[in-house]
Amino acid sequence: MSGAGRFISFEGIDGSGKSTQARRLAEGLGAAGRDVVLTREPGGSPGAEEIRALLLTGAPERWSAETEILLFTAARRDHLERRIAPALAAGRTVICDRFADSTRVYQGATRGDLRGLVDQLHALTIGREPDLTLLIDIDPETGWHRAKARADAEARFEDFGAEMQARLRAGFLALAEAAPERIRVIDGRGSEAEVAARVARAVEAWEAAAP
Amino acid sequence: MSGAGRFISFEGIDGSGKSTQARRLAEGLGAAGRDVVLTREPGGSPGAEEIRALLLTGAPERWSAETEILLFTAARRDHLERRIAPALAAGRTVICDRFADSTRVYQGATRGDLRGLVDQLHALTIGREPDLTLLIDIDPETGWHRAKARADAEARFEDFGAEMQARLRAGFLALAEAAPERIRVIDGRGSEAEVAARVARAVEAWEAAAP
Repeated sequence: MSGAGRFISFEGIDGSGKSTQARRLAEGLGAAGRDVVLTREPGGSPGAEEIRALLLTGAPERWSAETEILLFTAARRDHLERRIAPALAAGRTVICDRFADSTRVYQGATRGDLRGLVDQLHALTIGREPDLTLLIDIDPETGWHRAKARADAEARFEDFGAEMQARLRAGFLALAEAAPERIRVIDGRGSEAEVAARVARAVEAWEAAAP
Repeated sequence: MSGAGRFISFEGIDGSGKSTQARRLAEGLGAAGRDVVLTREPGGSPGAEEIRALLLTGAPERWSAETEILLFTAARRDHLERRIAPALAAGRTVICDRFADSTRVYQGATRGDLRGLVDQLHALTIGREPDLTLLIDIDPETGWHRAKARADAEARFEDFGAEMQARLRAGFLALAEAAPERIRVIDGRGSEAEVAARVARAVEAWEAAAP
């Protein structure tokens, strides 16, 4: 491949399996000879990882929602310009575990009045969406129990409960409905391998249809 | 005093003496019985000081201008909501060494095309100016030599040279010309005490005229 590479993001609620599926897709495409960059948000570049540390440590009320959105956006800008954009320019495939949709949904679910701020900051400083977003959809109860069972040092963003997980899931599904050409909903039930097969089929179908 | 307190910022190029003058004004008003908060940017609240550490350490090219503006804005938001606004609400006088004008001038001097971004982020997430800004004006050669002579561990933002200092000074003076009711230009030549007397007279005149 040469010229512009493909930019694929994975989204979903905590415990949906999106990180696992992002890794499996990266391994699968890599085994097929593609030059793949697997990355994540918040973080993904040295500077953005330092901002991630500010976001994911300390007391839950450490930052207001507005300051948090500014920090997520700063981290995303750094990640985009230092890691994602150069890789795409070199024709590589970038697979990213979470991108701007997560900020839209998480901040929107907790502070709906800030969705406009999220969108305006995105337009001003990011201005780019993934070419394809795979939304791993799972019922909130399952996701919540999976997330709780996981030993996670960065636990702040996991501590939501099933009711909030349901609101987050609804938020992701609403985004998918509004942008069906970009966001594909993947059934997250079943084994890792079953979900991975669904992801692989969705990517193949998308690439076959892409210009 | 009760109700809304006064918010006074000091601005100026490096070596202008603004930090010294901010401290002297705080001491003077405090000695006169006023309840004064002396603070600074970037930083001024625990969270903002952590963002300051990201901004002022590391290699000069650590952040792009756009990411830097987002980080300055995140720090300012935290500082405003956690420290400045509560103090003003309690009727205290807040004296701040640098505020948004510094971002306008420093980013504007190095990347003029980003002045619009600075202003839009300010409108979206800060939306507040000081009630009074004292611009300590000094010729760039003097400021540069003073700044160079100072032993400063956070040296990154000082390393500009006289030519850049001249552009920064012009930027501050242009802001003052555009907002004469808020920004008072103080002659920064002479001894600390002489400049402090000019600052004190300007504040007295402003308070006498204020509603």
